[in-house]
Amino acid sequence: MKAKYDILGIGNAIVDVVAAVDDQFLARHDMHKGAMHLIDTDRADTLYSSMPPGKESSGGSVANSCAVAAALGARVAYVGKVADDQLGSVFRHDITAAGVTFLTPPLRSGAPTARCLILVTPDGQRTMNTYLGACIALDAADVDVDLVSEATVTYLEGYLFDPPAAQAAFYKAASAAHQTGRQVALSLSDAFCVHRHRDAFKKFVADHVDILFANESEITALYETNSFEEASELARKAVALAALTRSERGSIIVRGADTVAVPATATPVVDTTGAGDAYAAGFLASMTQGKSLFECGSIGSAAAAQVITHYGARPGPEALSLIRDLSKP
Amino acid sequence: MKAKYDILGIGNAIVDVVAAVDDQFLARHDMHKGAMHLIDTDRADTLYSSMPPGKESSGGSVANSCAVAAALGARVAYVGKVADDQLGSVFRHDITAAGVTFLTPPLRSGAPTARCLILVTPDGQRTMNTYLGACIALDAADVDVDLVSEATVTYLEGYLFDPPAAQAAFYKAASAAHQTGRQVALSLSDAFCVHRHRDAFKKFVADHVDILFANESEITALYETNSFEEASELARKAVALAALTRSERGSIIVRGADTVAVPATATPVVDTTGAGDAYAAGFLASMTQGKSLFECGSIGSAAAAQVITHYGARPGPEALSLIRDLSKP
Repeated sequence: MKAKYDILGIGNAIVDVVAAVDDQFLARHDMHKGAMHLIDTDRADTLYSSMPPGKESSGGSVANSCAVAAALGARVAYVGKVADDQLGSVFRHDITAAGVTFLTPPLRSGAPTARCLILVTPDGQRTMNTYLGACIALDAADVDVDLVSEATVTYLEGYLFDPPAAQAAFYKAASAAHQTGRQVALSLSDAFCVHRHRDAFKKFVADHVDILFANESEITALYETNSFEEASELARKAVALAALTRSERGSIIVRGADTVAVPATATPVVDTTGAGDAYAAGFLASMTQGKSLFECGSIGSAAAAQVITHYGARPGPEALSLIRDLSKP
Repeated sequence: MKAKYDILGIGNAIVDVVAAVDDQFLARHDMHKGAMHLIDTDRADTLYSSMPPGKESSGGSVANSCAVAAALGARVAYVGKVADDQLGSVFRHDITAAGVTFLTPPLRSGAPTARCLILVTPDGQRTMNTYLGACIALDAADVDVDLVSEATVTYLEGYLFDPPAAQAAFYKAASAAHQTGRQVALSLSDAFCVHRHRDAFKKFVADHVDILFANESEITALYETNSFEEASELARKAVALAALTRSERGSIIVRGADTVAVPATATPVVDTTGAGDAYAAGFLASMTQGKSLFECGSIGSAAAAQVITHYGARPGPEALSLIRDLSKP
């Protein structure tokens, strides 16, 4: 069956609140720079009160990838849970306006839409604090197996292992994809997320993942090694294809006996939020368009470069038009 | 009595949704480029659905001025009406985090927090569509005369003439300020707003305003003339001090017999939203610090220049630190 969508993303539907802080702010609030911390409502309130003024925009790792992939011309659908509130409307508007099909019904009279307080330090690194809110309510019932069967690749984020009911959605989607001959891609999301769920991740990767995205700290955390080379060889054995990113050192793509090294696209760094998401978007959009591994990685790097030159996880208007140009032959 | 605040701002408390569009989008939706249009909920829904993805941040003309003035070291308080909802919390957080005292209680179980859909065209001009929401509920009871008497300048926005109950707040504040020997400043806000309320504006300006801010199209709209020179002479007679801005041509300040011309600060234009607000902030903060008219205008121009180099009405993190530097001797 010809696929209706190139990519179906399933992830935590989150609105980001981005503000710039100094390193002392992170230390004062016991944060690990570059990591994603799960926070409860009390911590969210305390942290928000002490933060500088912010800008809000739609986020969520896989949702970011979906928005960028759509800008690159891919046909994209998304599954994620927002609440029936103002931030939920913002999320729905933005992902729809980005050209992504988003049909998941909102959560009514439950937790509010998830938000992530993102603190960007002067070195461009982002430190995230996620209040999962309505994402906790995403469950297997939200995964439509027909939708999964209509997508060439179903792309999942490792963060979905945090809300317990979402894991069931995760497995249901993977199994539906494989039953209809489709592919499953996974992003490991965050080294601390890998630590929280290492055994479950290793099993899921080995049993269900065709395409794995991870950065250096995530893949070494998964395989509990300090050696990137060792981790990439383990990934080579575990999955059909792994795209492993190393910030300014570019990415290494391993597929069977092939190893392809792709340089990073040099660019001034303002805020690294969304860089990995944009890389995966460029990679998957290119892959579903039949491009070579080197092209997939290069368009991934170029999309990431556009995202890190401004505050926020999704490309702004100028970046979006540059990203659209990337997909032109 | 020594003032506790340098500036008390009273205005419409609004959250902005900023997106980039082309000129055709404005034409298709019958908008006048550069103007502020008042819209109802239906129009807000229709317009939002057809807009590209946006970024949300706190706005409102006088609220923007308050945030910039606080960054310049002024002691600032603000009165405005948000609802008890997510966008209201965003507004409250941002203005408080900017260092502004904001005590107005939120509206409960009424209209939602006001929002302004701001469309930025490639020439950097912004076209605004405001759904007034909870701002409609701002009334004279929200103006604390003691607070007014504690501020050197009470700064009002012309937009307050749109929500009917706010006009009463406007008059109450002006009269309380003058009764305690304080000054009243007004921004005319928008040429279309001037058209809607011309007679009321002329009377208020002549009877109650000490310091008037207007751009060229607003001041010529007020006095129904095509000549900026004629309009500025009429302003000179009507108020003690008028600061009249002319975009890249800088500003003209008239006070009694004095006329001071201040050049604009040259800068690349990305989005002009908030330029006038930042000018007024720089001017008023400098004025309450005892600076010369030329310095007041120059710091106003420099603050405006910082705001127009990025999307959004309030300075971003880099701009904020440059603005803070402006106030250093």
